[in-house]
Amino acid sequence: MSDFKPTAKTKIKRLNKRAHYDRQSTYAVLDAGIVAHVGYVFDGHPYVTSTSYWREGDRLFWHGSSASRMLKTVRGGVPVCVNVSLIDGLVLARSGFHHSVNYRAVMMFGQAEAVTDEAEKLKTLEAFTERLFPGRWAEIRPVTKQELKATMVLSMPIEEAATKIRTGPPVDDEPDYELDVWAGVLPLKVVAGEPVADPRLKAGVPLPDYLRGYDLEAYGGRREAAE
Amino acid sequence: MSDFKPTAKTKIKRLNKRAHYDRQSTYAVLDAGIVAHVGYVFDGHPYVTSTSYWREGDRLFWHGSSASRMLKTVRGGVPVCVNVSLIDGLVLARSGFHHSVNYRAVMMFGQAEAVTDEAEKLKTLEAFTERLFPGRWAEIRPVTKQELKATMVLSMPIEEAATKIRTGPPVDDEPDYELDVWAGVLPLKVVAGEPVADPRLKAGVPLPDYLRGYDLEAYGGRREAAE
Repeated sequence: MSDFKPTAKTKIKRLNKRAHYDRQSTYAVLDAGIVAHVGYVFDGHPYVTSTSYWREGDRLFWHGSSASRMLKTVRGGVPVCVNVSLIDGLVLARSGFHHSVNYRAVMMFGQAEAVTDEAEKLKTLEAFTERLFPGRWAEIRPVTKQELKATMVLSMPIEEAATKIRTGPPVDDEPDYELDVWAGVLPLKVVAGEPVADPRLKAGVPLPDYLRGYDLEAYGGRREAAE
Repeated sequence: MSDFKPTAKTKIKRLNKRAHYDRQSTYAVLDAGIVAHVGYVFDGHPYVTSTSYWREGDRLFWHGSSASRMLKTVRGGVPVCVNVSLIDGLVLARSGFHHSVNYRAVMMFGQAEAVTDEAEKLKTLEAFTERLFPGRWAEIRPVTKQELKATMVLSMPIEEAATKIRTGPPVDDEPDYELDVWAGVLPLKVVAGEPVADPRLKAGVPLPDYLRGYDLEAYGGRREAAE
């Protein structure tokens, strides 16, 4: 896979040992996350909207109601910035100054376009569902023409991107290592709890296998393997 | 506490049963989160940066290196949008169309300013540390003058804000409730794992109490109680 070329927008100037410009690092973060923050300018003002998203090849997708201001603005080809940040831990140093956060974050810039072809739209919505719940698309009631129309899907090429990753213990000033202060990392993780059935669930419908022992971060890996 | 007045930017037009404009709902979300996404415009382009943050009274704070582009741009009083989104679950409906996400999200608009007074800066950095690790500020090596100078703290009044919350089971089309499709919610939560000591931790330094059974979302509540 080709690397990203750092641009004025994506070139990481400080702490550049945390910077990655290869697609593999970037896609690993994108495939492990479920929520992106999309930034755009409307009437001169910045807006940031959180949204679910998915990736297919070298494109990022997100979707929503055709009536959404974010989607209506963004489909017009205005510049957007999409940020996906995963928080892996709080880093406790011996001084306040060196406290930090372990994270994996991707920042992407580009222009999005609406997926207008109905078959394409349907296919990518299937990919979105299957990414999170492999096998579910065949189980659920098929999408109607009206629903498809009411759903806007946006797609953006992943071309201008930078990934920042911090891992590991705190880095303290050398003399501070002698202090009697606990230092280390408090790991953080998004975990799934036990599925809660809809109170109106039809009697006898079993819990699907894909919801047992659900591991959010595993899906990206599984999908790559299946490609 | 006074409510927020919906503006052209914060008025939620669709799904407005999810909308909240009271400070209590907004502050409950802010105090339960640890990462915000700050959106701003630089050279006509939108940027979204993730950052830790904290709240004191009716102001939001975030910080970083004095050399950060985000902070240098934003301290100039340009309009910013700050988004804090907490993801509580994946909502599985009987049709793809009604799949959803349970979340708590705050969108704030305003202008930030740098905290320049040294004593004030120090005091709010203490509040930030104590919010996450009550008792830690007194344990760590004090901040030096140079560190304080190298740290930029931004502060923004929380005046233009909207909070969106979705909870509960899927809402399906009435005929779909008869389908043999599992429906419900897969709860998601950010949890802390076992603290990992720095390999260079001085022998005999015990794990602090505030890291035992760490519950991320509890800190906001504890802080309010202590006020």
